[in-house]
Amino acid sequence: MSHHLLSACEAAEQLAQRSLRAEDMVRDCLARIDAREGEIQAWSHVAREAAVTRARALDQGAHQGLLHGLPVGIKDLIATADMPTTYGSPIYAGHQPAHDASCVALARAAGAVLIGKTVTTEFATFQPNQTRNPHNLAHTPGGSSSGSAAAVADGMVPLALGTQTAGSLTRPAAYCGVVAFKPSFGGINRAGVKPLSDTLDTVGTLARSVPDAALFAAALSGRTDWLVRPLAQGLGRPLRVGHCHTYEWAHALPDTQAAMHSAASRIVRTNGMALQELRLPADFEHLVQAQTQVQLAEQAQCLAYERLQHFERLSPRLQGIMNAGLAVTLAQYDQAQAWLARCRAQLADVFTDVDVLLTPSAPGAAPAGLDNTGDPIFCRIWTALQTPTVNIPAGRAANGMPVGLQVVGPVAGDALTLAAAHALQQVLLAA
Amino acid sequence: MSHHLLSACEAAEQLAQRSLRAEDMVRDCLARIDAREGEIQAWSHVAREAAVTRARALDQGAHQGLLHGLPVGIKDLIATADMPTTYGSPIYAGHQPAHDASCVALARAAGAVLIGKTVTTEFATFQPNQTRNPHNLAHTPGGSSSGSAAAVADGMVPLALGTQTAGSLTRPAAYCGVVAFKPSFGGINRAGVKPLSDTLDTVGTLARSVPDAALFAAALSGRTDWLVRPLAQGLGRPLRVGHCHTYEWAHALPDTQAAMHSAASRIVRTNGMALQELRLPADFEHLVQAQTQVQLAEQAQCLAYERLQHFERLSPRLQGIMNAGLAVTLAQYDQAQAWLARCRAQLADVFTDVDVLLTPSAPGAAPAGLDNTGDPIFCRIWTALQTPTVNIPAGRAANGMPVGLQVVGPVAGDALTLAAAHALQQVLLAA
Repeated sequence: MSHHLLSACEAAEQLAQRSLRAEDMVRDCLARIDAREGEIQAWSHVAREAAVTRARALDQGAHQGLLHGLPVGIKDLIATADMPTTYGSPIYAGHQPAHDASCVALARAAGAVLIGKTVTTEFATFQPNQTRNPHNLAHTPGGSSSGSAAAVADGMVPLALGTQTAGSLTRPAAYCGVVAFKPSFGGINRAGVKPLSDTLDTVGTLARSVPDAALFAAALSGRTDWLVRPLAQGLGRPLRVGHCHTYEWAHALPDTQAAMHSAASRIVRTNGMALQELRLPADFEHLVQAQTQVQLAEQAQCLAYERLQHFERLSPRLQGIMNAGLAVTLAQYDQAQAWLARCRAQLADVFTDVDVLLTPSAPGAAPAGLDNTGDPIFCRIWTALQTPTVNIPAGRAANGMPVGLQVVGPVAGDALTLAAAHALQQVLLAA
Repeated sequence: MSHHLLSACEAAEQLAQRSLRAEDMVRDCLARIDAREGEIQAWSHVAREAAVTRARALDQGAHQGLLHGLPVGIKDLIATADMPTTYGSPIYAGHQPAHDASCVALARAAGAVLIGKTVTTEFATFQPNQTRNPHNLAHTPGGSSSGSAAAVADGMVPLALGTQTAGSLTRPAAYCGVVAFKPSFGGINRAGVKPLSDTLDTVGTLARSVPDAALFAAALSGRTDWLVRPLAQGLGRPLRVGHCHTYEWAHALPDTQAAMHSAASRIVRTNGMALQELRLPADFEHLVQAQTQVQLAEQAQCLAYERLQHFERLSPRLQGIMNAGLAVTLAQYDQAQAWLARCRAQLADVFTDVDVLLTPSAPGAAPAGLDNTGDPIFCRIWTALQTPTVNIPAGRAANGMPVGLQVVGPVAGDALTLAAAHALQQVLLAA
């Protein structure tokens, strides 16, 4: 029997007990990649031999940590000392960093087996690369963590690393029908991740279940309270869920509208959960614009070298993004940053009467076509607000593609957010 | 006549008018390096030919920007696409990044001539490298921006880039008798700078005068309001200076105590300035400890690769720092971060009645010996609080070594802070 669809938590337990060999797990993942990569194109590099060698060493050695023997994919925006790191750009074709990013070094130390690098869009912006959506090859997997989401969705690896500046974890997870966890800002160290926006860049994890995404993140952050335990043990009262349409609701397509309605209907019928409609503070209406201005301006600075020395090797779309960033004046930038700070200060009020929010992940299911990665409109405010978010699969669109919803918690409330997301995922997926 | 001691502002004007050739300026700086580097050892790499070639091209081409033709040194913690970048560690001997840091790319675009890389301590921590203090070769230049401070002090370059996580701009500037400007957190983009602490790392500039340091920082940030203009034009009332001993005053040695007293005595006799004793909020008393815990914990994560893969190639001192970081629990870290946020929220109160603070830069003048870089105790709170700071030379210690004082302004008040520091430097240095 192939182990490539084992959950990370289940595999971790069997690996720890030595009832599953890391080498078998890794070989099954590699076999799945062999079978499917031609169509999915989730990987910019597969470290076949190194992964098998590493798995063998783990099988013969002491237990390394929470990720012992688990195969993982690393978004190619993240530096690896033994694999090329291209940031999704031809400028860095074949580029080999001299070090691992912090999160990669910590994953290795916890026993992970690095299967390879997953495709990112060009510098994690809106210009897609070759990856396709496993649910329909003619549809985008979303971006910028395109390869990580597709590889996890297709059963090539149980775990993958991603990053989010606007919606680059949540959106591809929603489009590919998997889970993405964006921790509270700074929850996973980002040293060695190609910077796009100092204010917004956040490292997160992708997996096929909330406990799996939490396991990976807990190993990297050292926060073992993130490991998902049954909610009932901790809360001692109903989980209060805020049903939150946001000021971006006009962008929600019928499939997302239906998912929100259906989720509400299931939650109100669930014992141990309470639902209330939640309206965000009025200032949050302008948060998408402020987040966008901060991101555009900072991207043009973070990518100053590429913009100034290799402009002609940027895609026309990224050239446009760079120029849009340069067009944001310092006065506009300062005002946008002030707006972010103002809204963050109001965030505690949002969570006065609810534990978590349930809100759209994306306008709808993955759009058809491979020339764009969809719209991060429903993710921008949560990245700006630095909250933990979890995308959970929430059924299917009319055309059969996955639809996702976001569970959002208060800053530093990652453990509760994950536990709530796990409980909500059970509710949404129940027959 | 040699031009190596020209101020950056003066040189920039002559270079713009083409009354000074960049090639002559660069050759004079290189000659100074030739004459003195054997003793000072400020450089890890000198790009002699590239610098001359670049200067010639600038002399023949259009005016590039605020830094046209100005020779600059780049701290070797900062990535350069055409010069080795070692981070002061043998792990990275000869390491050649594939890109420029954002601040380097922006310096080039503004017309700067990169003379080379200046020596940093090991990963910008407390383990010194070879640089000596130009004022006395038996004394430390401070750290971690050791080479940048020494090179500027010795007249090898008018401008250099540095970084600060605790006191790595202010302290070496004070010890070497030059100016360092640490902008408000995030004022200069830090993409491409080896990360030590996401919460604290700040890029800044070193020069021999406040207007020079401001010129460099204005070019990199795009904030031309940072360019120093006479204070009288902008303020329309006396400059209100808070004389601030801080909760660390017990660490001030007689030379620093004398500099603070002497400064006070000069300021109260100066037209257009008003002095008042300023006591910081009570919560600030624990800020040094909180900053230290955040820094230690984040360093151990940011340097996870080096710690986990190359521990034996770290100096014993850095090994100790890594272990100290690992000993900070997540609960302590979260508490320390909360304390930083709490104090930042009280910072506005500090500047209710004063425009800027004058406060020690270091316990005293540069200590004798090359085996340590001195104590950043007087810098830690300002890095944690994200304020702009300017070290200004403030006379000499009993042993003839320079003593510095810090001018500190409110967050985002960089322009006023620089203008005030310039005015105060005139007052402190007047005969």
